[in-house]
Amino acid sequence: MSAERLDGRVASAALVERLRVEIAGLGFAPRLDFVRVGDDPASAYYVRSKERLATRVGVTSHTHVLPVGTTEDELLDLVGRLNAAADVDGMLVQLPLPGIDEKVVLDAIDPAKDVDGLHPINVGRLWSGRQALVPATPLGVIALCDHYGIDPTGANAVIVGRSNLVGKPLAALLLARNATVTLAHSRTRDLADVTRRADILVAAVGQPRLIRPDMVKHGAAVFDVGLTREEGVVVGDVHPGVAEVAGWLTPMPGGTGLMTVAMVIANTVTAAKRRRWLA
Amino acid sequence: MSAERLDGRVASAALVERLRVEIAGLGFAPRLDFVRVGDDPASAYYVRSKERLATRVGVTSHTHVLPVGTTEDELLDLVGRLNAAADVDGMLVQLPLPGIDEKVVLDAIDPAKDVDGLHPINVGRLWSGRQALVPATPLGVIALCDHYGIDPTGANAVIVGRSNLVGKPLAALLLARNATVTLAHSRTRDLADVTRRADILVAAVGQPRLIRPDMVKHGAAVFDVGLTREEGVVVGDVHPGVAEVAGWLTPMPGGTGLMTVAMVIANTVTAAKRRRWLA
Repeated sequence: MSAERLDGRVASAALVERLRVEIAGLGFAPRLDFVRVGDDPASAYYVRSKERLATRVGVTSHTHVLPVGTTEDELLDLVGRLNAAADVDGMLVQLPLPGIDEKVVLDAIDPAKDVDGLHPINVGRLWSGRQALVPATPLGVIALCDHYGIDPTGANAVIVGRSNLVGKPLAALLLARNATVTLAHSRTRDLADVTRRADILVAAVGQPRLIRPDMVKHGAAVFDVGLTREEGVVVGDVHPGVAEVAGWLTPMPGGTGLMTVAMVIANTVTAAKRRRWLA
Repeated sequence: MSAERLDGRVASAALVERLRVEIAGLGFAPRLDFVRVGDDPASAYYVRSKERLATRVGVTSHTHVLPVGTTEDELLDLVGRLNAAADVDGMLVQLPLPGIDEKVVLDAIDPAKDVDGLHPINVGRLWSGRQALVPATPLGVIALCDHYGIDPTGANAVIVGRSNLVGKPLAALLLARNATVTLAHSRTRDLADVTRRADILVAAVGQPRLIRPDMVKHGAAVFDVGLTREEGVVVGDVHPGVAEVAGWLTPMPGGTGLMTVAMVIANTVTAAKRRRWLA
């Protein structure tokens, strides 16, 4: 057999179209500002793809590029100005931040504009079952489930990788959807034994082809989030052979990454509406 | 075989003695205020046991009892005064709050004085791997592990129950100790199949004798947190017969409950020190 595709192109296109219609009906253009420091090509690429989608759906965006050597104080000053700017609905400080303490910067972002969902108050509200801005990648995984009718209720969901940006918030979201959730990671003793029990398996480590076919339950829904560049080619955490075992599989590229970009815009719309008491 | 006791009396006595010595060396008495609303006997009992321990170790405590029918505004007014009081190091608003929205009250507590660890900012800091005030019961489970030399690293830890007060924060703590963590709950499909894989099993549901001997792996460390009163007798979530299968087991009573009370005091000391930049 061959797994059905959890096609990020299809699901994100549907989502983007819904966002475009919703934004057109708002009566104003939400504004999303990007901040990046230095000239890391991957950071520049990520920001550019989000900018492009923002423009396409009617979100105004401004990108602030600060030079290598920017101090923490200079960055905090910019964040403070964006917090204070009434017309800015969301901001995204692209990580990593060379030579700057990320925690200090994340804490300084107005939680109401924190479209990356990394401010402790958003993290805490998520885990407390409250309204929150939630990181885009985990939201994208849930949206893919919804698009393809995969119901997490009662399922064994195994997440490999415990990052603040993906693994942990996704655990909270799948738990809220009534999955039995397992968080596995580099210190997990017998990873294959854990992953083989998963009805929903998410790999978010950044270790090429970590998840081999023999580690996957027949018919499982497998989400590949990890991403590594090998000689210019993008490689996921999931071995291509998994397609022969899984029931559903995200392609790489064309899977979860596209959902992430769309969800950044969705978060911006959410932030813009809540700031105006529209949601 | 018969499981070794994870004796809350022994472990909490050691902890309490360490706290007593530490407090004596501080040069001031930390102060912990309790707030409870109405005349629920269980709430009164819990507050009393914490008060008694506070006094014993040198923590000043004041209990504010508000009558049934207290409004949200009246309670918020008291919380605001305790937030502002320079000599109050910690406060604990005993739940449940009859007829009052708990979330509004928890959000109003100064996170620096939130010894229950339920303010979203403390929850978020915990899940972000940052310094935080953490709920006492999960801290008590970890302290019992430490006292008896049970190392969570690489272990399969299964937590049954996903409450904000126990299940979810304990998942964060065990994850930080490098366990592979599974959160199971009422919607888990085959609970026995999940619990049987646990090296560390925590039952925190409040369903008498839910965990039967056939649901436990031989030699596992089992922590009974759930608590129900049946005709005046306290009954845990773990069937007594589990003692024949488990390697370690908390007695009920005399197990995790005593650790919780001690950890409330530990949190008060932590809060008192941090407020004075001593930690």
